Amino acid sequence: MPVGTQGAVKGTLFRDLEEAGAEIILGNTYHLHLRPGDELIGRLGGLHRFIGWDRPILTDSGGYQVFSLAERRKITEDGAEFQSHLDGSRHHLTPESAVDIQTRLGSDVAMVLDECLAYPATRDAAAESMQRSVRWAQRCRNRLQQLRTSPQTEVIVSNAGQAQFGIVQGGVFSDLRCESAEATQAIGFEGYAIGGLSVGEPIPVMYEVVEVTARRLPVAQPRYLMGAGTPEDLVESVARGIDMFDCVLPTRNARNGQLFTSQGRLNIRNARYTDDDEPPDPACRCYTCRRHSRAYLRHLHLSGEMTAAALNTLHNLTFYLDTMQRIREAIEFGTFDTFKQEFLRSVSRPAHDS
Amino acid sequence: MPVGTQGAVKGTLFRDLEEAGAEIILGNTYHLHLRPGDELIGRLGGLHRFIGWDRPILTDSGGYQVFSLAERRKITEDGAEFQSHLDGSRHHLTPESAVDIQTRLGSDVAMVLDECLAYPATRDAAAESMQRSVRWAQRCRNRLQQLRTSPQTEVIVSNAGQAQFGIVQGGVFSDLRCESAEATQAIGFEGYAIGGLSVGEPIPVMYEVVEVTARRLPVAQPRYLMGAGTPEDLVESVARGIDMFDCVLPTRNARNGQLFTSQGRLNIRNARYTDDDEPPDPACRCYTCRRHSRAYLRHLHLSGEMTAAALNTLHNLTFYLDTMQRIREAIEFGTFDTFKQEFLRSVSRPAHDS
Repeated sequence: MPVGTQGAVKGTLFRDLEEAGAEIILGNTYHLHLRPGDELIGRLGGLHRFIGWDRPILTDSGGYQVFSLAERRKITEDGAEFQSHLDGSRHHLTPESAVDIQTRLGSDVAMVLDECLAYPATRDAAAESMQRSVRWAQRCRNRLQQLRTSPQTEVIVSNAGQAQFGIVQGGVFSDLRCESAEATQAIGFEGYAIGGLSVGEPIPVMYEVVEVTARRLPVAQPRYLMGAGTPEDLVESVARGIDMFDCVLPTRNARNGQLFTSQGRLNIRNARYTDDDEPPDPACRCYTCRRHSRAYLRHLHLSGEMTAAALNTLHNLTFYLDTMQRIREAIEFGTFDTFKQEFLRSVSRPAHDS
Repeated sequence: MPVGTQGAVKGTLFRDLEEAGAEIILGNTYHLHLRPGDELIGRLGGLHRFIGWDRPILTDSGGYQVFSLAERRKITEDGAEFQSHLDGSRHHLTPESAVDIQTRLGSDVAMVLDECLAYPATRDAAAESMQRSVRWAQRCRNRLQQLRTSPQTEVIVSNAGQAQFGIVQGGVFSDLRCESAEATQAIGFEGYAIGGLSVGEPIPVMYEVVEVTARRLPVAQPRYLMGAGTPEDLVESVARGIDMFDCVLPTRNARNGQLFTSQGRLNIRNARYTDDDEPPDPACRCYTCRRHSRAYLRHLHLSGEMTAAALNTLHNLTFYLDTMQRIREAIEFGTFDTFKQEFLRSVSRPAHDS
């Protein structure tokens, strides 16, 4: 899922995303709640209509952003008090209000509010936080059931078919992850996410936790690894049972001039590309690679032209979406293991090593 | 002509420009000479190939930007000495080097180097400057003839069919404009531009100078008003004989949130658009107007999303290019006067006056 924080995937037009093959995008509840506001979006018919995107949308719960506010938030059993990064205004985010906001937004998949633990954390802290997340998940589910069964005047429902995903927490502790997976399933959701990874833990630890956790989640429902990751992370995590991802890496790195290619990572600022007439990735089908050279992209990037960000973003998202497409095909053809080996050999290094 | 200063029209992809109907774009010699350099662009096959745009390109001479450097340039009969705004490095721009640079770039239309007079100027200053521009124009033509007839090893010719336009100067003084028009035609160019307008003079004065000057230029060759203007300026100047324009207004104002529409100017930051579900211009065919609302564009603009600039730019360029298209049709159908009246009545005001 390309990340559309504030109702746009930075540097793209939606038709470019559609062409790149995006089937679903992510919207950030925290940002949209503060600006332009979920009340306004709900009144205008929901997020799809407001932003002009009619394919699926997943919204996070806002928890991750609120926890990232550090000094400007306070967590209690009830929820989180925080100050807006925009104007310092005070807000209250509870499991119930996280559900209400996402109901107004009318996303296709809503996420429960969970506590996002800092890494590293002790086992006790991780256990306590995980248990609170389970209690919050139950409150989120209760609130959703209430909205589904009895209309609330203060919450316009703009997408009656909205699914809700639970989130498994438990830090890097396998037994806590298993306990969380059980408890979250006991509540019962339309899908399950793994949260609290890709936050600084060593990569092998992340893969291990993904493996242990995914194994405890129902195969017939979506399993979603939140916030990951590199192209390698996608392939390694699918190998461990993951179906869905979101990450700012392809878009953010594009703006910084880093391109993900079938030959590895390519930093377009590098002087070696000054007169390089080749496309960024000769194997890529995207508009950028069909039309432009590394030399041109380097020039635009160094000149601070926003077109550089747009072209790089279009390429990186196409590369990520094509990778997922190739993974799906390899699984269908029964060649995933071979694909994985070859893919990891080709992309896990800088392009054009000398 | 949309303005592609550094090899990109800010906030757009070329396919969007093609869709909007752009038949030709402008590139800035000053910027491209400094970065990435006309030597590099020439070596890579010329500007069309370097930037991936195969429709026509017009390049200016670099003079206007150099004259704008104020303290950082010195003008003599030979040409201009200036310091780069990028790194302070010293450069020399002469009529001959302006031709050489544009020859390396391989644009379809190259402009002569002219002296850009500040406004206001005395008649004596305007006369002296105009006469120097005529001498420079002759030197530009001589250099081009030399390049056409005998290859120079230091100048790769990447577009053998390049046209060269002369520029009429003379400030706001009709007799000087006439003298300049005569002298420039006596040298002989493939087309003629009117320079030194849209620099602060009152609008009626500008129209008067355009009228007097255009009348003295050959109807069978392109007449190009440099650096103008508003939608009203386009229509008023075509009425006086102008065929071509370039202006940063549609792109720059788009980035600042000002939209040109069939109902007048619309500032997307205005609070009245907070929950306005209408497209920016209901009469417009562009992607932005087909897909997005004023409320959404306002939200993106206030959120600092670069997608706002991209969507606004796409609309404004479409509006400008459609205006030119409508002008051409009205001329063909013999209804230009009626069109002009109606157009000026509808666009010359803020949209949604209360």
